[in-house]
Amino acid sequence: MLSSEFMLDSRLENDSFELFNFPLSQCRLINNQNFLWVLLIPRKNNISELTQLSFENQIQLLKEINQASQVLQSFSSCEKLNIATLGNIVPQLHIHLIARNSQDIAWPNPVWGHPSQPYSLEKSQNLIQLLKTKFSNQTT
Amino acid sequence: MLSSEFMLDSRLENDSFELFNFPLSQCRLINNQNFLWVLLIPRKNNISELTQLSFENQIQLLKEINQASQVLQSFSSCEKLNIATLGNIVPQLHIHLIARNSQDIAWPNPVWGHPSQPYSLEKSQNLIQLLKTKFSNQTT
Repeated sequence: MLSSEFMLDSRLENDSFELFNFPLSQCRLINNQNFLWVLLIPRKNNISELTQLSFENQIQLLKEINQASQVLQSFSSCEKLNIATLGNIVPQLHIHLIARNSQDIAWPNPVWGHPSQPYSLEKSQNLIQLLKTKFSNQTT
Repeated sequence: MLSSEFMLDSRLENDSFELFNFPLSQCRLINNQNFLWVLLIPRKNNISELTQLSFENQIQLLKEINQASQVLQSFSSCEKLNIATLGNIVPQLHIHLIARNSQDIAWPNPVWGHPSQPYSLEKSQNLIQLLKTKFSNQTT
């Protein structure tokens, strides 16, 4: 039904590339080469708080956070994962997963507020392909 | 056994007041009157990433995040909850839950990086008592 079709916020769409669809959420790569940074966006409309998801869906999201975390950790050998749902600017529920390193541009502060540095077309295409393969292998 | 006794990081301890012990995590109030801001700290030693907790413990933590969220939402009528685990400075796993409002000092940015404004002794004692009651009622 058209009325239940998932609507992705245009700001999230413009700032990121589609990587992978988990059973619940869409995983997207933020277009900022300063950080390996993905979003998990549950494909449910009109949800802005984690607590608005059913507990069953929260557990599914938790599984997807674990799977995405493992991809980021194995792909980047990061020192720390930052996991957050803020939503002060874009209300649509989205979970940030960011691979952090003590050499990154914002360390040890959070990543928000630092100017983005978009990927080149070639870099983004290569990275997206590599990550898509990682995510597909992770969940099979 | 002394060897398995939970050790709270001294920086977390110094920045916050103990509120409530859930089955898994200790809930503490951050000593900053700019925001209603609590931490959930799973009482497990040597854990810095969410993904290092067993999935069973992650689900328990999720329950506690829901319960603490409900306390913050009912207590503060906040417009948005920010939920995050960063740990770039203090590695011990701790989950931030912050009640946000469009009138708060950092809105719409994240709260980290803004100078703290500690509670007066009287304010903190009153708030801690009120929150302890809320948390106790929430979980009975």
